[in-house]
Amino acid sequence: MSRITALETFDVRFPTSRELDGSDAVNVDPDYSAAYVVVRTDAGDGLEGHGFAFTCGRGNEVQAATIDAYAPFVAGLEVEAVFEDMGGLHQALTGESQLRWLGPEKGVVHMAVAAIVNALWDLRAKREGKPLWKLLADMDPEEIVALADFTYLTDAITPAEALGMLEERRAGRAERERTLRERGLPAYTTSPGWLGYDDEKLRRLTAEALADGFTQIKLKVGADAEDDVRRCGIAREVMGPGPRLCIDANQAWDVPTAIERVRALADFDLTWIEEPTSPDDVVGHSVIARAVAPVGVATGEHAQNRVVFKQLLQLDAIRYCQIDACRLAGVNEVIAVLLLAAKHGVPVCPHAGGVGLCELVQHLAAFDYVALGGDLDDRVVEYVDHLHEHFVDPCVVERARYRAPSAPGYSSEMRRESIERYSFPHGAEWAGA
Amino acid sequence: MSRITALETFDVRFPTSRELDGSDAVNVDPDYSAAYVVVRTDAGDGLEGHGFAFTCGRGNEVQAATIDAYAPFVAGLEVEAVFEDMGGLHQALTGESQLRWLGPEKGVVHMAVAAIVNALWDLRAKREGKPLWKLLADMDPEEIVALADFTYLTDAITPAEALGMLEERRAGRAERERTLRERGLPAYTTSPGWLGYDDEKLRRLTAEALADGFTQIKLKVGADAEDDVRRCGIAREVMGPGPRLCIDANQAWDVPTAIERVRALADFDLTWIEEPTSPDDVVGHSVIARAVAPVGVATGEHAQNRVVFKQLLQLDAIRYCQIDACRLAGVNEVIAVLLLAAKHGVPVCPHAGGVGLCELVQHLAAFDYVALGGDLDDRVVEYVDHLHEHFVDPCVVERARYRAPSAPGYSSEMRRESIERYSFPHGAEWAGA
Repeated sequence: MSRITALETFDVRFPTSRELDGSDAVNVDPDYSAAYVVVRTDAGDGLEGHGFAFTCGRGNEVQAATIDAYAPFVAGLEVEAVFEDMGGLHQALTGESQLRWLGPEKGVVHMAVAAIVNALWDLRAKREGKPLWKLLADMDPEEIVALADFTYLTDAITPAEALGMLEERRAGRAERERTLRERGLPAYTTSPGWLGYDDEKLRRLTAEALADGFTQIKLKVGADAEDDVRRCGIAREVMGPGPRLCIDANQAWDVPTAIERVRALADFDLTWIEEPTSPDDVVGHSVIARAVAPVGVATGEHAQNRVVFKQLLQLDAIRYCQIDACRLAGVNEVIAVLLLAAKHGVPVCPHAGGVGLCELVQHLAAFDYVALGGDLDDRVVEYVDHLHEHFVDPCVVERARYRAPSAPGYSSEMRRESIERYSFPHGAEWAGA
Repeated sequence: MSRITALETFDVRFPTSRELDGSDAVNVDPDYSAAYVVVRTDAGDGLEGHGFAFTCGRGNEVQAATIDAYAPFVAGLEVEAVFEDMGGLHQALTGESQLRWLGPEKGVVHMAVAAIVNALWDLRAKREGKPLWKLLADMDPEEIVALADFTYLTDAITPAEALGMLEERRAGRAERERTLRERGLPAYTTSPGWLGYDDEKLRRLTAEALADGFTQIKLKVGADAEDDVRRCGIAREVMGPGPRLCIDANQAWDVPTAIERVRALADFDLTWIEEPTSPDDVVGHSVIARAVAPVGVATGEHAQNRVVFKQLLQLDAIRYCQIDACRLAGVNEVIAVLLLAAKHGVPVCPHAGGVGLCELVQHLAAFDYVALGGDLDDRVVEYVDHLHEHFVDPCVVERARYRAPSAPGYSSEMRRESIERYSFPHGAEWAGA
């Protein structure tokens, strides 16, 4: 038996705005940041759980303070009891009777729960000596169902339906795990297409991405309409007719504008339009989806919780479901969304990039494939080639495939030197700035 | 010319959980709190702007810290320029390029903007020597339209449509203002029906409310089903067949449960079911609305922004629109929702209670009536008889009518002694606890 002794938080910020990496129509100058938490125990095994909420810089101190607000509900708990009922703890945190008002289940409070829950999963996977995806994929269907919170979901999926789906697909697990280990997860890249990059850089990086083996590339759009046409033209010209081209408006448009602007890009054979409008507008997404077909609608990095995903799926508003590992309240809520998406036959293509998001979502996509099946190549995972060097177990992408992680844990642990150097405002990177 | 010199924040908490005031199926033990902000200037006129975000206790420090995160974008601004373009400042704050990630436009960040925007409106109304409702009601339609952010709304209402509505209804303003001053705003009471109260207290307080002139009473439901039937029976028995009985589930139910539980109360002639399910579930609310008619669906105290209200109205999911003065991003976003509701012909019945919410929403309901017309008695404003003594200009409710506020400002200013005594954790009320 061991106890959780402490949760230590850090405000870690990377000055990405200096080079306009990550710039888009709405996030014009992000400093990719992590409100980072380390969970320690008295087990004496040297293991810690690491988790974080991703933010864009300012406000990361608020996000860290919110993790602190939840810490008293976790510190002191018995580790083994927590691991026995991760679903219970997850619901206790998202439903905390006073903190709940600040959401409920959205924004800063929800992301704080994500950071803590993910840190606990990291610790559990390290203890069991497995990468997180494998830990989850080895569970019985009953265990998996018990992890998810079905509150507000039962009009779309019941625990019994989820159980049935997992049971039915259980037989193929071993083969899918083998396929995953052999082939890895397909990746697409957003690196060529940041809005702050000029045409020459876009052209060069697109060619490099193709040379690296990528068959799907995403461009940021949504500022100037003529720029969008020109930039899509450049990308498609460099890519030729085969590879998939996606665009991402990062919520820049109203519903009528979204329809008009996507239709204006019809010549470029787009696979998806991502975040065409407000992430809160499930009705708007469904209107856009009908109007811009055959271009598919993708969204999710700002979908605040499982209830929003439920509605997007109920309304046939998305053709690609883009979970975020830190905006949803951690692994548990992600599982609920994976089950919903599987029931609706919509592939999950996780949002990544930022800092550490690629490291996390590779586990989620791998679990999704092994436990829920379908076509491996449907689960195309975003890849952005930034900031991986700060992680102890960075993701490995070769020839546009994520290699299935093999180290125990959730790949969420940041190097100690990086935490120190980029701590805001007193780390070496910022103290001199 | 004058400048904003400082924003000072306070973490003020009232220990309401000690008596179970405010207890419901989800908020079982709230300590009504305010993350409070005072805006000061160098004008030398002795005027300050006061605003706050309401919370339920724990996490109020996070809410206050979030207001601090926005303060640098307001401190130093020229007051007159801010007042010239309140719509512009409102959008600059809700769209702040890095803080935006923490919402966007929801939860803690959105409520922080509310606190600041409301404080600025308080200051402006004090400067102009008018209660806020009158300041707004005296504006030209063009000025009013310029206050609202139509981003993501244009598929439901355009600025031109809003302008047309306001112009059309302008002729009746003077008469409606007279009616408002003579009759006040109709109030309903939630005080008898908190879930933590026993049957005897419910019976006694219901009788007292009727004796006080209330013709609409709201009960908390959503925990035990048999309790709901018994409690509704007691209230209806005491009330007789005339007065309106409403119930409030505070998000306790899934969609199928909500339908079943409301139908089980059909005998009690309910006017509305409030918050039957997740506030994020616009599709669910529309399903419930169709299934439980003739009982109307009401929601809004947790509707995070104008985009959620837009969808609730587009889907005919609500028959009563319950704006909150502090969850929406202040006066400006409330105006957008008032315009949306008016276009859809849905009456706005503000959420109040908590601490200071009654003081604020009386202004919003008064403006709504004067500027947008309709039936005065449709705008029934929640009233809870708690904590008003802490305000410099408390609302006055007599014979179940809110008297139209007359003091300059937004009635948002808390007494200095109360701020000090209830400051957490060092005020006298908490230091000894």
